[in-house]
Amino acid sequence: MSLSIDYTLAMHRGSGCGLLDRHLDAETAAFERALAQVLARVRGGELGFWSLPSEAGALDEAVALAEATPASITDVLVLGIGGSSLGGRAVYEALGGPPELRGPGERRIHFPDNSDPWRLRRLLEVLDPKTTLALSISKSGGTTETAATTLVVRGWLRDAGVPMKDHLVLVTDPERGSLRALAKKEGLRALSIPPNVGGRFSVLTPVGLVPAALAGIDVRALMKGADTMRARCEQSALRENPAGLLAVLHVLHHRLFGRHVHVLMPYADALRATAFWFVQLWAESLGKRSDRQGRIVETGPTPIPAVGATDQHAQVQLFMEGPRDKLVSFVEIASRPGLPIPKEEGPNEYLGGHTLEGLLDAEREGTARALAEDQRPSLTMRLDTLDAPHLGELLFVWEAATAIAGELYDIDAFDQPGVELGKRLAYGLLGREGYEDEAKRVRDAMAADPSDYRL
Amino acid sequence: MSLSIDYTLAMHRGSGCGLLDRHLDAETAAFERALAQVLARVRGGELGFWSLPSEAGALDEAVALAEATPASITDVLVLGIGGSSLGGRAVYEALGGPPELRGPGERRIHFPDNSDPWRLRRLLEVLDPKTTLALSISKSGGTTETAATTLVVRGWLRDAGVPMKDHLVLVTDPERGSLRALAKKEGLRALSIPPNVGGRFSVLTPVGLVPAALAGIDVRALMKGADTMRARCEQSALRENPAGLLAVLHVLHHRLFGRHVHVLMPYADALRATAFWFVQLWAESLGKRSDRQGRIVETGPTPIPAVGATDQHAQVQLFMEGPRDKLVSFVEIASRPGLPIPKEEGPNEYLGGHTLEGLLDAEREGTARALAEDQRPSLTMRLDTLDAPHLGELLFVWEAATAIAGELYDIDAFDQPGVELGKRLAYGLLGREGYEDEAKRVRDAMAADPSDYRL
Repeated sequence: MSLSIDYTLAMHRGSGCGLLDRHLDAETAAFERALAQVLARVRGGELGFWSLPSEAGALDEAVALAEATPASITDVLVLGIGGSSLGGRAVYEALGGPPELRGPGERRIHFPDNSDPWRLRRLLEVLDPKTTLALSISKSGGTTETAATTLVVRGWLRDAGVPMKDHLVLVTDPERGSLRALAKKEGLRALSIPPNVGGRFSVLTPVGLVPAALAGIDVRALMKGADTMRARCEQSALRENPAGLLAVLHVLHHRLFGRHVHVLMPYADALRATAFWFVQLWAESLGKRSDRQGRIVETGPTPIPAVGATDQHAQVQLFMEGPRDKLVSFVEIASRPGLPIPKEEGPNEYLGGHTLEGLLDAEREGTARALAEDQRPSLTMRLDTLDAPHLGELLFVWEAATAIAGELYDIDAFDQPGVELGKRLAYGLLGREGYEDEAKRVRDAMAADPSDYRL
Repeated sequence: MSLSIDYTLAMHRGSGCGLLDRHLDAETAAFERALAQVLARVRGGELGFWSLPSEAGALDEAVALAEATPASITDVLVLGIGGSSLGGRAVYEALGGPPELRGPGERRIHFPDNSDPWRLRRLLEVLDPKTTLALSISKSGGTTETAATTLVVRGWLRDAGVPMKDHLVLVTDPERGSLRALAKKEGLRALSIPPNVGGRFSVLTPVGLVPAALAGIDVRALMKGADTMRARCEQSALRENPAGLLAVLHVLHHRLFGRHVHVLMPYADALRATAFWFVQLWAESLGKRSDRQGRIVETGPTPIPAVGATDQHAQVQLFMEGPRDKLVSFVEIASRPGLPIPKEEGPNEYLGGHTLEGLLDAEREGTARALAEDQRPSLTMRLDTLDAPHLGELLFVWEAATAIAGELYDIDAFDQPGVELGKRLAYGLLGREGYEDEAKRVRDAMAADPSDYRL
């Protein structure tokens, strides 16, 4: 058991924060129902993400694509946004090293992510189309930003005269959408995102696996770690189920004590992108207007990305002294090769003989204990080390916790109806056919704006 | 007037969100007192940050250092954390282009930031000590993480046999602390952070100016922009004072409607680091246990970094449908050279003829209007373009708003007492002399942990 959770300081007996054993005990039945419900939906084929770690198809496809990609491809340009970028980036940053510092012979993966051309414009200047593989990722095939950047990159490849089919690979729905249609029309390679896996749960589909495999990351080990965690997350005893515990602790701290700000704070720069992946997962899954009875609830915790020790100098002041509305989940890497700190005489002599990693560990413990001394709760997720299996565990446990938390909040954790309106209004402004009403609506609203609130 | 604020949608008449003209009017007197108080503290020499834009000293020093740095120095390694890194990074990323994609002849500035050696270890492998300048930044001189990484980098320089004084520059207090002592002892160049400027308000001191100047950024123009904004922020009429308006809008939305989650969401990847700089500024300044009468208040808004359009696919679902506890500040870049989207037949034909930048603008407007249709407030800060003067304006207005908001919240916006305890406990764990009690306290607490909350 290599990912462990120490939730001592999230409990009243550990940190005086108010959460009692009887609170956990009283929630056990609700957890059991939630888990049963999730697993029933898994068996019914509705929640595809849960079964991904035990399936070989996507994994084999990703590995095969990576093996078929010649060494002459030195750069991969991932065109995707949100769930089509965050997961791939999390895996690549955690296991591929600092991406801007890849060594010779190591393939570089770029995630311009945004449709903002700030990175993309520059990438298209410095990259050579002949040595670049573009990966266009959109589950629906219709994501505006990805459609736009894909059009730009197709123009760039065409202008360079390189064969589209050697330099553009698509990742999309197996049947539907414009990327799939493009693949058929032009004979491009296209990998599938299963229709029953939502974007923010897609890190273990080709969305995350293909960039990772192309970077030489051991994606089989990643999946194996995730599968180990999947088995643990199917345990019906709450205190044996890591995802169940994460979900119940967060939901109870929220419901009983108003702790709706949920911080993920790895003491590891390599997991910074994972913290952003978590933010999307938690915010988009649990932030919902209506519950499943159709009642307006306008609920959802506020996820916060943080990184130790950096955020001790940015956000920890607020965590320590501000409103008691937060639950912090630390992530500790137990064993890392240490970079020794040389000893010099003077006030910093005490640092000599320690390693930079040891310093991080002391700081995490110091911060957790300081919070606890003021009855502010935290928990710590410990990875034995940061490698592919452990990352697989970490990613899966948060996905599973999200699904269970969705049941406990009684909302649909797998839709995102709130993003539609803004998209439609933008289509209107862009003059897209069929959105004339939206265009008029925005323009009327803009024209009706009172003019006295501008400075 | 080049940075403008449109707060129509933060007002009831604009978005139905509840904030009325009479609310603003009723706060006018409080704002005037707050501003007078801030300016009195400025005149009294207590709040040094306010006067920085109109002072030449630090600027001249930074420019001189950059001019004296030979072209053979291709890389700068900034050793600093929190306020000693975030500001420099914000300026460098916004104006120096995507840092990992600098062109030939452009000096690269690296901000490993954390004491986590993930980046640093790799940097020390790929950089050549002969062509690297290390910049060690700590106001007090005693920041543990910076002390540790500086010791490591000094070892690296020593091992390479390069002269320390050509390859290590310090930025610290003019008199006190171990970095200043080191400078004196070894004859190293050392620039000063004025004692009356706090770390998170130090972007316009050598902390931000030196890395920027070394990167070839026009720091004089940056300061000039900040100074333009400084003058505007001294205006006593609330509706003419950009910082006053930002402060009052945020405080009123918080106090009257419980909107304590304050999102900064630039539609510009180049301002992503600025959003993180804002998070520290807002969280550490306004998150406080006690007010100035010593009453326990445990207050402080929750700042959130976001970037458009990326976060439309991550956090906007929560902003649109979740709790009505948020105020979003968009940042729009009005004029940017456009990267055209080629036209292709098919469902995405509507994108052809637009630019990627035009797409971003439509998405920002669509998102703001979608929020407003549901009575969810936002405001938009518009920069004519993203250059040094505009960035100077943007940075200064948030600093000034923070100072004014501190007065309105009636807390001390310039201390950070909450971070001390965690530091002391970490010193204890590291065996630092004088922290034996803290060591015992943590070890006793760890030993007393009940063992039944581990999984």
